[in-house]
Amino acid sequence: VAGVSAESVIGVDLGGSKVLAGALSSDLTVHHRAQRPTRVRDQAELVDVIVATVEEARSGSDVEITGVGFGIPCTIDQVRGVAVMAVNLPISDMPFRDVMSERLGLPVFIDNDGNAAALAEQRFGAARGAPDVVMLTIGTGIGGGIILDGNLCRGGRGSGAEVGHVVIDMDGPPCQGACPNRGCLETMASGTALMREAREAGLRAPGSALGRALAAGRPLTGAHVTELAHDGDEPAREVLELLGRRLGVGIASFVNLFAPSHVVVGGGVMAAGDLLLDPAREVVAERALRPAKDMVEIVPAAFGPEAGMVGAAALALDGLARQAARA
Amino acid sequence: VAGVSAESVIGVDLGGSKVLAGALSSDLTVHHRAQRPTRVRDQAELVDVIVATVEEARSGSDVEITGVGFGIPCTIDQVRGVAVMAVNLPISDMPFRDVMSERLGLPVFIDNDGNAAALAEQRFGAARGAPDVVMLTIGTGIGGGIILDGNLCRGGRGSGAEVGHVVIDMDGPPCQGACPNRGCLETMASGTALMREAREAGLRAPGSALGRALAAGRPLTGAHVTELAHDGDEPAREVLELLGRRLGVGIASFVNLFAPSHVVVGGGVMAAGDLLLDPAREVVAERALRPAKDMVEIVPAAFGPEAGMVGAAALALDGLARQAARA
Repeated sequence: VAGVSAESVIGVDLGGSKVLAGALSSDLTVHHRAQRPTRVRDQAELVDVIVATVEEARSGSDVEITGVGFGIPCTIDQVRGVAVMAVNLPISDMPFRDVMSERLGLPVFIDNDGNAAALAEQRFGAARGAPDVVMLTIGTGIGGGIILDGNLCRGGRGSGAEVGHVVIDMDGPPCQGACPNRGCLETMASGTALMREAREAGLRAPGSALGRALAAGRPLTGAHVTELAHDGDEPAREVLELLGRRLGVGIASFVNLFAPSHVVVGGGVMAAGDLLLDPAREVVAERALRPAKDMVEIVPAAFGPEAGMVGAAALALDGLARQAARA
Repeated sequence: VAGVSAESVIGVDLGGSKVLAGALSSDLTVHHRAQRPTRVRDQAELVDVIVATVEEARSGSDVEITGVGFGIPCTIDQVRGVAVMAVNLPISDMPFRDVMSERLGLPVFIDNDGNAAALAEQRFGAARGAPDVVMLTIGTGIGGGIILDGNLCRGGRGSGAEVGHVVIDMDGPPCQGACPNRGCLETMASGTALMREAREAGLRAPGSALGRALAAGRPLTGAHVTELAHDGDEPAREVLELLGRRLGVGIASFVNLFAPSHVVVGGGVMAAGDLLLDPAREVVAERALRPAKDMVEIVPAAFGPEAGMVGAAALALDGLARQAARA
């Protein structure tokens, strides 16, 4: 397309409840968004829903689309382009890259959603242009990704860095979902841990706002605990501080391993902002090694719910650039 | 040199008590070794000792030497080629690469000794040719390195992966030396931890061989505890099992992060062999994620005391190949 300098791709964030596709240019202009629910019966129906969503984003935008990136909540075999195992979607050992490339007639690039979010922050967000970045996305679980020397650190067969499943307390509580471990960062510092600790703190302090909310039978959400903490409720603040300190123990291990310039923290729990990050920063200052601990900034993510879509677009832009460099 | 196809370099293992230099070809033939003590007054004297040792290895071998690699027990700034901070040597913010290159008149490549040992095992040893490898060297402390996609993972400014300073027990004992952390893998599973746990086990079981050795005032060494365990002394075996299980917790975190095909374990403590590695393997099978845990082999290092020298030579061979590719 003459006169258009920025390349345009579609970034697709595939989630357990919905698929979000955006046609983006490399300057992050979003030309069109499309979204559909992913409550489907089986893998075949899921593929149809994804294809329809991507086609809608493509036809709705007036730029030429040269590739499609997917962030998938799934372990990935990058060598074969296979989506191996997902917890919340009917995907199992699916040749995702080839299937989508065939259906869409475009080059397709896939990665897990944590890696996509890390790429979004490192290319366009809170750690823009930094070579060494650790990203943690804290929601029900803890996902994320590691970028070293500008490249996603995918590990053996590209199966992805499970940053939430690093142990911080070997005798801690059992981890969540399919993880057979104990005391992983995920089970100690995720939104699920926040709820667990908030219930216990509320029971210990029945007169506090947190305790009264609990006694009233209101379902405690992370947003609610955070709101109470922002309003000055002491037990709610202590819960966030406890979680933040545990997060800091995990981040200190990452700092000692990777000496990143930035640790970016995103996900729903980051509504707590510095109530969570300040204790984490204190622990890293106390516990990590020099000179790495003096070089790292622990910062909130720039992207919220669109991190996955932006990161998936970045995956496609990256992949196309690599293909062009090889040609 | 006509007729010689293998490139030859000098690998230098710089330690707190001695410097060992070997002239090696890329097929691992050692043409000449030289060694000198490193008990020196200051940095200037240390430089002279190193230069003399390298020159001896060079003049003693009859092949052309094209580069020198150094493994240094030190944090390294790869960008500037600076040896930043060493615990056991009079080195501090020293422009090591430039100083040695100037003195020796050869291309010089430096890295910390843990990274050099990892490279030795991945290029020539127990994980030969494997792209994704984690190496742990267990002695007084725990060092090592991480190789991803065939390249050493050096992190920000190349300051090195401190694999021993990943927390496995956030409320565990204070770590060793200059590390301000608690419950690091190093303080839980190093040779120092082995001694600590053996003393306690000996006191609890005064009638055992371990208890009697302790009561006799014989200085307990790791080698001695290992010998008692090999002879079937139950408390000594339990100490090694405890250490091996803690090691497994740390390895499970690395498996979840990097999905390596090999975790290579070396250092003096590996005299215990499978008495240490079998419990570690069990814990990884219990606690790490699929599919990564099914892909990993936990194996003893192939190189003993010469790992550092071989790895330093591999550093030089790698560096020269990279320079040739660029030219």
